[in-house]
Amino acid sequence: MTDRTKIFYPVEADLLLLTENLKQLVPARHPILYAAAEHLFGAEGKGVRPAIVLLVSRTTMPNQDITQRHRKLAEITEMIHTASLVHDDVVDSSEVRRGIPTVHSRFGNRIAVLAGDFLFAQSSWYLASLDNLEVVKLLSEVIMDLAEGEIRQGLNRFDTSLSIEAYLEKSYYKTASLIANSCKAAAVLSEVSPEIAENLYQYGRHLGLAFQVVDDILDFTGSTKTLGKPAGSDLCSGNLTAPVLYALEEKPYLEAMISQEFTQSEDLEKAVAVIKESNGIKRSQELAAYHASSAIDCLASLPPSDSRQALRDLADYVLIRIY
Amino acid sequence: MTDRTKIFYPVEADLLLLTENLKQLVPARHPILYAAAEHLFGAEGKGVRPAIVLLVSRTTMPNQDITQRHRKLAEITEMIHTASLVHDDVVDSSEVRRGIPTVHSRFGNRIAVLAGDFLFAQSSWYLASLDNLEVVKLLSEVIMDLAEGEIRQGLNRFDTSLSIEAYLEKSYYKTASLIANSCKAAAVLSEVSPEIAENLYQYGRHLGLAFQVVDDILDFTGSTKTLGKPAGSDLCSGNLTAPVLYALEEKPYLEAMISQEFTQSEDLEKAVAVIKESNGIKRSQELAAYHASSAIDCLASLPPSDSRQALRDLADYVLIRIY
Repeated sequence: MTDRTKIFYPVEADLLLLTENLKQLVPARHPILYAAAEHLFGAEGKGVRPAIVLLVSRTTMPNQDITQRHRKLAEITEMIHTASLVHDDVVDSSEVRRGIPTVHSRFGNRIAVLAGDFLFAQSSWYLASLDNLEVVKLLSEVIMDLAEGEIRQGLNRFDTSLSIEAYLEKSYYKTASLIANSCKAAAVLSEVSPEIAENLYQYGRHLGLAFQVVDDILDFTGSTKTLGKPAGSDLCSGNLTAPVLYALEEKPYLEAMISQEFTQSEDLEKAVAVIKESNGIKRSQELAAYHASSAIDCLASLPPSDSRQALRDLADYVLIRIY
Repeated sequence: MTDRTKIFYPVEADLLLLTENLKQLVPARHPILYAAAEHLFGAEGKGVRPAIVLLVSRTTMPNQDITQRHRKLAEITEMIHTASLVHDDVVDSSEVRRGIPTVHSRFGNRIAVLAGDFLFAQSSWYLASLDNLEVVKLLSEVIMDLAEGEIRQGLNRFDTSLSIEAYLEKSYYKTASLIANSCKAAAVLSEVSPEIAENLYQYGRHLGLAFQVVDDILDFTGSTKTLGKPAGSDLCSGNLTAPVLYALEEKPYLEAMISQEFTQSEDLEKAVAVIKESNGIKRSQELAAYHASSAIDCLASLPPSDSRQALRDLADYVLIRIY
């Protein structure tokens, strides 16, 4: 099973409904925000997070249909994710994301800050309307973690002494927390046992970390066309990821190259070449594979179903992009 | 009773504790955010919103001490208020607020967006930890309303057909919603009857509207020194407030002046002079007085106490600045 659409087959109809609902979130009376929302929710490469929530929902409700609350939770995860991307693009002054101009570059800082705030606010409000305090706490934690992750990434720019542990912690805050906590929240809405809820949290945590490590590998091995940005963009902005940190252990002279902060474009090319020649990519692949397989292990206690299979396939699929 | 410190006397000790707690919110390991937080929570003119929450808490807990939850709610209102100011300053590109350089002008857009997100996130998380779903809903509504208010203000720039009703609605979203909903939330934490909770909501709504109308009058009648910005700043940015809207009814030629959007600085001075000569200021004073006295009426059903008296005095005090 290699195709994303095939993996999401058990929740295909759910995802169509979700996309329609998300597009209707921002009322037409706010013309610019409306354009921003169309732009945001219409973009490709979206929908992984709600798909995971819907799959967990279906896996934990084996003999009945999922509820409106499960569906709303899936929408909330996409809203929170989108809000954080919009503000990240302001913070990082990014012009494009996955080849598409960012809200900030297309509509300006003003609209990007407002659109992000509006989506965060709307997600908090939706969250409260789920009438489940545990779910509110899980997702509020996520919003905190996203801010914390962005701050840590900012603080650690060009810090070559960063450990792999600190990198994984930052990756948890920035990427895995949303997936882990929303998997657990879906399980809580299905009223499963605390053990199963915890297993699903761990599934999401490992999957999210695998996602992030894979993205960080692709920043070196992907082409400008598939990435929608030049290779080495993270490194260039001082965001030191797994391939760099492993390469630094092997080739300490990389430290001096990084500490120059790539004021000359050929310096970046040289550093990227050093990293690609090192074992940094291979060790990062192993790290991603470890987290993907740990994710699959967390599903063992769940009853077999198409949805559970899809959650396993997804963990395998994450790795396909880097092999 | 004319002095703000005297009015807040019943919650003086509570406010000192609150200020200390707020300063400790942002851990020292985030040096720039820490500086931003010191800057934010250290600024003068702060603390009205938490003072109101604490006074409502004490008024509704006449025979016992207020709880930790009441205190946390007061902190949350200040966090939400501060977060929204920080983002408003990015959106409006403001350089100073009450004479103090904004976070955005001092630390840049990047830190201002992050600091605002961090405070919003932390307030959502604190809110969930109050373990009261009704309170979560009330304050989530506020975060939505703040975004809605800022968006409306943006959409209605230089719109001379704006009605006073639409202006008051925008003012509710931007200013009164936080005070109204946090007054009600304090009452809910005190487990009062739904009627009393509603009265306190209305108290906050009227007080918040009075606050906003007074601020909008001062934009014309205050000096640069007391305002910390030049007179007519709102008008200059296209934010048409009560004095302008009333003046437009009386002097329709003002419409043409406003529709030029003040590209020449003498145009602004002329328009400010026309507004000050009109009955716009007087009618705005009457509007503020109406809301201040309506606020006081909402307190009738509460048992007399120092705190209730302070809530009444506060509504009177709001008006003192404009007479």
